[in-house]
Amino acid sequence: MVPHLTTALSGPLLALERRFLEAETTIERWLRGQWLEHTPPFYASVDLRNAGFKLAPVDTNLFPGGFNNLNPAFLPLCVQAAQTAIEKICPEAKNLLLIPENHTRNQFYLMNVARLAAILRHTGLNVRIGSLLPEVTAPTTLDLPDGQTLTLEPLRRLGVGGRRLGLEDFDPCAVLLNNDLSAGVPDILKDLHEQFVIPPLHAGWHVRRKSRHFLAYKEVALAFAKEIGIDPWLIDPEFEVCGRINFQERSGEECLAAQVDELLERIHFRYRDNGIDAKPFVIVKADAGTYGMGIMTVRDASEVKTLNRRQRNKMAVGKEGLAVTEVMIQEGVPTCETVADSTAEPVVYMIDRHVVGGFYRVNTQRGTDENLNAPGMHFEPLAFETGCSLPDSAQAPDAPPNRFYAYGVVARLALLAAAIELERSEPAN
Amino acid sequence: MVPHLTTALSGPLLALERRFLEAETTIERWLRGQWLEHTPPFYASVDLRNAGFKLAPVDTNLFPGGFNNLNPAFLPLCVQAAQTAIEKICPEAKNLLLIPENHTRNQFYLMNVARLAAILRHTGLNVRIGSLLPEVTAPTTLDLPDGQTLTLEPLRRLGVGGRRLGLEDFDPCAVLLNNDLSAGVPDILKDLHEQFVIPPLHAGWHVRRKSRHFLAYKEVALAFAKEIGIDPWLIDPEFEVCGRINFQERSGEECLAAQVDELLERIHFRYRDNGIDAKPFVIVKADAGTYGMGIMTVRDASEVKTLNRRQRNKMAVGKEGLAVTEVMIQEGVPTCETVADSTAEPVVYMIDRHVVGGFYRVNTQRGTDENLNAPGMHFEPLAFETGCSLPDSAQAPDAPPNRFYAYGVVARLALLAAAIELERSEPAN
Repeated sequence: MVPHLTTALSGPLLALERRFLEAETTIERWLRGQWLEHTPPFYASVDLRNAGFKLAPVDTNLFPGGFNNLNPAFLPLCVQAAQTAIEKICPEAKNLLLIPENHTRNQFYLMNVARLAAILRHTGLNVRIGSLLPEVTAPTTLDLPDGQTLTLEPLRRLGVGGRRLGLEDFDPCAVLLNNDLSAGVPDILKDLHEQFVIPPLHAGWHVRRKSRHFLAYKEVALAFAKEIGIDPWLIDPEFEVCGRINFQERSGEECLAAQVDELLERIHFRYRDNGIDAKPFVIVKADAGTYGMGIMTVRDASEVKTLNRRQRNKMAVGKEGLAVTEVMIQEGVPTCETVADSTAEPVVYMIDRHVVGGFYRVNTQRGTDENLNAPGMHFEPLAFETGCSLPDSAQAPDAPPNRFYAYGVVARLALLAAAIELERSEPAN
Repeated sequence: MVPHLTTALSGPLLALERRFLEAETTIERWLRGQWLEHTPPFYASVDLRNAGFKLAPVDTNLFPGGFNNLNPAFLPLCVQAAQTAIEKICPEAKNLLLIPENHTRNQFYLMNVARLAAILRHTGLNVRIGSLLPEVTAPTTLDLPDGQTLTLEPLRRLGVGGRRLGLEDFDPCAVLLNNDLSAGVPDILKDLHEQFVIPPLHAGWHVRRKSRHFLAYKEVALAFAKEIGIDPWLIDPEFEVCGRINFQERSGEECLAAQVDELLERIHFRYRDNGIDAKPFVIVKADAGTYGMGIMTVRDASEVKTLNRRQRNKMAVGKEGLAVTEVMIQEGVPTCETVADSTAEPVVYMIDRHVVGGFYRVNTQRGTDENLNAPGMHFEPLAFETGCSLPDSAQAPDAPPNRFYAYGVVARLALLAAAIELERSEPAN
């Protein structure tokens, strides 16, 4: 069972949560209207930071990898939302090919793949898993810690001229990517004209930029804030971009330091105007990065000019060993949430336009102003105990159903930003 | 909390449940295809009977009145499904008018109305309740047993020429009926051309006939049975109709007795062919009736010819005091399910095409071959403890998630039949 999140939920009462609660009908109707104009991604997860004085998304993942961390009680919600999503995208689909990341030893990730496959099977799809790993040349069955197994199969091009993608004896109507394409689009995924690829290839990190996402988010946050009468800063992290940096060769450092300086000053004034007694900080991260790689907390511009070799190496390389040359400098949002003395941040999961659950990323070794999704670091997922769709105005604004509702609202704003971001980055045909 | 349904779930293992389990992917895909061709009603509940050898719907309600009986854990499913339904029917709706039955003293029913209104509010609608009762001439607030209140308001025609329906200062985009219109369409609901009425007026019992529903169901059951390779009788209750009967004047009795006789014989042969050791019986019920009124169990044709005055009076009058002149004779499906020595039957709730929960109707005073939904009788709702969308092939076919899945499948077949029935009875414009 899920332990009670006493500590994680005892943060200071947010006027923001109260406002969300009062404005629930307006919020839901506004979002419904937005989804008439923008198509939500098939799925997404959003990392949030609740500072007590501010609740903002800090990362939006279009290839979510923690479905296994959700409370099993939410599974029917996942299945129902996936049914809706499939019905919209490819209602006549029979076979679905799931393409995961190339992690064969990360048992947590493999359990995510198994959970995702199970959800999709319950919607009435035959689901098989195709691997991009060159060493998977025949069906390979992996044992999972919970006693399940997962079979990875080699991908094949099928049909006349190899126009379709599939597996041996398996011709799918749709291909669902759970691989973020950090290293670019593999040849075997290119030129698929007869099959639905979900999400579209340009949702991969070879195209995505965090700064484009947060630019779209800024617009969404502005419109939403106007709708319900709040200061958009309360839900929107400020950011800047440095487009040409080389950590190894120490070029572009001046640009980075100047941006850090400017952003820290902006946050300082925001804090002053809002009566917030905290020390501003920023997060420097790879603009196309993921997996918590290439991320650093900076409290003073001088820090980025005095990086030692180890720090440089860490920042210079992202997932799949790719060089980091574009960075985003994002307003640091401290987390006020802790679980049993450990730092915690909420991660919200969505399928289609529905929040289907979430969990706390709990890190025993990191501070409230650090990235909790660090590679190789120990983190404990702690599933949300209730859903995010049932705020209860009879309870306090920070009671679990209400706080989870606020998480679900901000996460959906990030989802909407992702939808707009994908529209804008769609390649011309 | 919901008690464990040990007794209700220990019925004989059904080969049918096993087949549903094996064919889950086929079933879900088949249903998905059906919903491309037929629009599901906004909501519905289906009474099922599980005989151990047969699992069949016996009544389909298009104005479900027991949302308060669902496990609160299923509420997020209700909200999500209602969001999908609203998005399809009237995505830009802001205000919704809910019109309930005219029961102001039935506290259970009023709690249903309150629950339904709460679900709809969570989807982002302003919901107010308009009453058809002539004595409601001003907003009337009723206290509910759980401490909530419910405000009924008088209906008004609004706009130029009174083309719209609403309340004082409330012009709704959509009107949701939770009133089955047994007594016909009240004048105030007629000629609404600018508003969505959900479900459509012809879903009311002034138009509906059980026999039309079960005729559509027979076709659905046949197609479904063919798809998954089962005998359709296993899910389809046989029936006959008598169109002109007058219980008070004792006319039409011969027709009724002959139909009862024929149906009992057909069931007898079915039982023989399937090796079922049970005594056939039929249920005689008003073809346009509801609320468990005008229903009788018959084991021999002679019984319908020797009704005493009390029995005649009981059969002659349906809801709202309407005379019963058309009856359906339906194959009796005994229930093999009991909860703590009481007879039980499952009731499955759906919104749009999704199963959102269910409960057992448990009756301490009725036998396994009797109607459990009798007016004035004591019944205990017992909420399903798990959802109906997550069968688990690792467990036995009669384990709760699998039995609930089977319930959900048959209930959705009845929902599909209702969709077809509504298409066919749609008035020509």
